[in-house]
Amino acid sequence: MNTDSDTSPTAALILIGNELLSGRTQDKNLAFIGSRLAARGIVLTEARVIADVPDVISNTVNAMRSKYTYVFTTGGIGPTHDDITAECVAQAFGVELPAHPEATRRLLEYFNNRDIEPNADRMRMARIPQGATLVDNPVSIAPGFCLENVIVMAGVPRIMQAMFENVEPTLAVGPSIDSVSVVCDLGEGTFAGDLRELQAKFDDLDLGSYPMSAENGLRVALVAKGRNQTSLSQIQAQLEQMVTRLGGRVFSDD
Amino acid sequence: MNTDSDTSPTAALILIGNELLSGRTQDKNLAFIGSRLAARGIVLTEARVIADVPDVISNTVNAMRSKYTYVFTTGGIGPTHDDITAECVAQAFGVELPAHPEATRRLLEYFNNRDIEPNADRMRMARIPQGATLVDNPVSIAPGFCLENVIVMAGVPRIMQAMFENVEPTLAVGPSIDSVSVVCDLGEGTFAGDLRELQAKFDDLDLGSYPMSAENGLRVALVAKGRNQTSLSQIQAQLEQMVTRLGGRVFSDD
Repeated sequence: MNTDSDTSPTAALILIGNELLSGRTQDKNLAFIGSRLAARGIVLTEARVIADVPDVISNTVNAMRSKYTYVFTTGGIGPTHDDITAECVAQAFGVELPAHPEATRRLLEYFNNRDIEPNADRMRMARIPQGATLVDNPVSIAPGFCLENVIVMAGVPRIMQAMFENVEPTLAVGPSIDSVSVVCDLGEGTFAGDLRELQAKFDDLDLGSYPMSAENGLRVALVAKGRNQTSLSQIQAQLEQMVTRLGGRVFSDD
Repeated sequence: MNTDSDTSPTAALILIGNELLSGRTQDKNLAFIGSRLAARGIVLTEARVIADVPDVISNTVNAMRSKYTYVFTTGGIGPTHDDITAECVAQAFGVELPAHPEATRRLLEYFNNRDIEPNADRMRMARIPQGATLVDNPVSIAPGFCLENVIVMAGVPRIMQAMFENVEPTLAVGPSIDSVSVVCDLGEGTFAGDLRELQAKFDDLDLGSYPMSAENGLRVALVAKGRNQTSLSQIQAQLEQMVTRLGGRVFSDD
């Protein structure tokens, strides 16, 4: 909580797709986007996973875009009937969804070069809400888009990642949040009291304890985050001393 | 949408933890819970990933519990200072958080048998909101709990899964939703028109198209869901015919 300074840009992520909620598809986009935003000093404050229901998508976009610096969405921008994100975002903003000239040009060039028929469904992917700018898609051409502070990306991780990397340089940079971590083989109950004292002592850091599944038994990662490098160095040393004093071993965090 | 009958029980999932939003931890609980609920005919309508912030946790629990048949939470019930879910749920319901006699008994027995000191932090895990019933934890003993329609579970997948399996038989059973799927190697733009026609024809089914990453090139899963077995059999045959007619190959879905 101490690291979520009022000066940091914030973000919300909306993961769109019935397949995520039914468990058919294991999401991989949250962890990627969360870590890349954190590296830029942008605080990902919440993520929502929602179904392919038009009003739910529009209402969620509207609820989030007034609250956060950025809203990212993934999923629902392909050519099939269940790809409805572009129209829902247009509806959220109350704007039209015309064929975008540059998106149309790119898609036609891509399809023509590959002898793919530019049928009506494929050309649906050129429809972009009025006023939005394109987000390049180097993988499969059909672009995402940015409309004000809402960034609409594909759901397929490889395409989403390429889109994210194109948008990334345009995002605000927040005060950097650094972290140190110490992995140990102690049970949380063994160090919980000491950890609580360390958190009280270093009140400019956020200290968390994360049990992990490991092949060779219990591991817990102790992670401190913050902006004060001196505090971070000190707490790392003190976490390592604590583990050793309590009879545990320190492991590399990888 | 056609399968989300008014008669189906519904659920929301709240994934609690800064480590999920920072990308440090890859969530695996959503897909497990989503698929197990779907198998029971319970519609997981939304999931939210939120930070370890007391008011955010309490407010999210309150917003969800009035809307859905069940609310599941994962994370934040361990012994360390950042484990605050039990107190936040107690606050959401406006109830006390006393040491629960049976939870206390189980923890003391477990610790005594293992020569582990039952220190104050470990015994925090016996605090259960007034009126809640325990959810057994066969892995590491410290229980989850159910309070009205809110089910509070651990974040570590192995423990969460064991807790879920203990709660599962007590959950309502909805009308079963079955599915058939056909995996093919066609681009979505190739079959999007035919798929749209099939969706219109089978209006008692939900038809979705999900591109997948595959080692050996593009794969797309076409998935139909619904309760009408005749429709499901028919659409499976027609999906396979469609793929073949369009020059694609049909693969097994695994």
